[in-house]
Amino acid sequence: MLRVPRKFDLVVGRGEGTTPLNAFDAALLDAGIGNLNLVRVSSILPPGAQLSPGLQIAPGTPTPTAYGYITSSTPGQIIAASIGVGISSQDTYGVIMEFEGFCTKEEAETRVRQMVEEGFQMRNLSLKEVLVQGIDHKVEKIGSVFAAVIMDY
Amino acid sequence: MLRVPRKFDLVVGRGEGTTPLNAFDAALLDAGIGNLNLVRVSSILPPGAQLSPGLQIAPGTPTPTAYGYITSSTPGQIIAASIGVGISSQDTYGVIMEFEGFCTKEEAETRVRQMVEEGFQMRNLSLKEVLVQGIDHKVEKIGSVFAAVIMDY
Amino acid sequence: MLRVPRKFDLVVGRGEGTTPLNAFDAALLDAGIGNLNLVRVSSILPPGAQLSPGLQIAPGTPTPTAYGYITSSTPGQIIAASIGVGISSQDTYGVIMEFEGFCTKEEAETRVRQMVEEGFQMRNLSLKEVLVQGIDHKVEKIGSVFAAVIMDY
Repeated sequence: MLRVPRKFDLVVGRGEGTTPLNAFDAALLDAGIGNLNLVRVSSILPPGAQLSPGLQIAPGTPTPTAYGYITSSTPGQIIAASIGVGISSQDTYGVIMEFEGFCTKEEAETRVRQMVEEGFQMRNLSLKEVLVQGIDHKVEKIGSVFAAVIMDY
Repeated sequence: MLRVPRKFDLVVGRGEGTTPLNAFDAALLDAGIGNLNLVRVSSILPPGAQLSPGLQIAPGTPTPTAYGYITSSTPGQIIAASIGVGISSQDTYGVIMEFEGFCTKEEAETRVRQMVEEGFQMRNLSLKEVLVQGIDHKVEKIGSVFAAVIMDY
Repeated sequence: MLRVPRKFDLVVGRGEGTTPLNAFDAALLDAGIGNLNLVRVSSILPPGAQLSPGLQIAPGTPTPTAYGYITSSTPGQIIAASIGVGISSQDTYGVIMEFEGFCTKEEAETRVRQMVEEGFQMRNLSLKEVLVQGIDHKVEKIGSVFAAVIMDY
């Protein structure tokens, strides 16, 4: 099997570009992970994975990442993304949820927390804590917001 | 290179949630793979890969997965997903196809089988058999269906 | 961590099918990579990666791939995809951009080159050269175009 990641970090970013993909790229750079090859995963925190703030990963590394994002080309629009990581009080895996929408950071964070809680209820797991990070952005021309859990070994 | 998977299984699931992502999560749990980190791939059965029903994979493992899914928030709507795996009569790789749409399980299974047959014709490969699984669901509030081939080592 | 790819190649393809997924599959076959398990990544050229035209990868191999594609079922419509790889004049990583749209190959190549240049400007990196490949297609029934960087070890 592919190895199970042992470390994780939550990151968020926002940016503007002259195309949607450049705006997304700017948001990744703002989040500090613009030089990785993100491999999108859905979206479980491996058992025993350790929160590792400021995780350093070599450029170009294929990196398992759970993320939400939204890009808009409507000036003035408020866009938001958030990421939530539910940590179990049992010694097992956690659940990661992503949210993106047209709202504030606070609303995005509230929503993703509820999504994590629902993920735990569905699994009959008890929740020790929920780590949440969100971000919002008022679009200037073409803007993007991004919220992720990146995983490493 | 990344290693070539040696085992595979077909799974299907359906579920309801209070958000589209939670409904998708419920469908993954119903399919028995809600605790993995699915890495979406397009979509070849490796040569010699063995069908391994009930494949057990550790929680949080990044898992190559070919899948189709659809989520709807229209109560009463019928949604369906299906997965088809064409096995070659030659000793080579197979072709995986995914389908999702607004139809019954039976229609979804018929459609994905035709897609696999077309994939074999395009490659001038002869088809020994097609493994198919489908699922449908009548949406209550926010529903999702999911059909996949998961791969392991 | 997952290993950092050491080789790459640019490929493009186009095709027709009786469903969007079969058309996409035809485009992958035309590009010479229809028998791999593409793992989509966003989208950095690893430091020191070597251009390896005609890269041979075993069927079914999970293969990190940055790609753009578009599928249309409007007969007569012109669709295009392109891929651009910016190589740094410093000894560091590069930036990959993807484009897809309703235009000619030439327009798609011009656009993706500009996107790569913007990616370098955002990083304050100097650009040695940009490798670009594009493709277009006039849709017959259901058509697809695809442009990618595939990565190997």
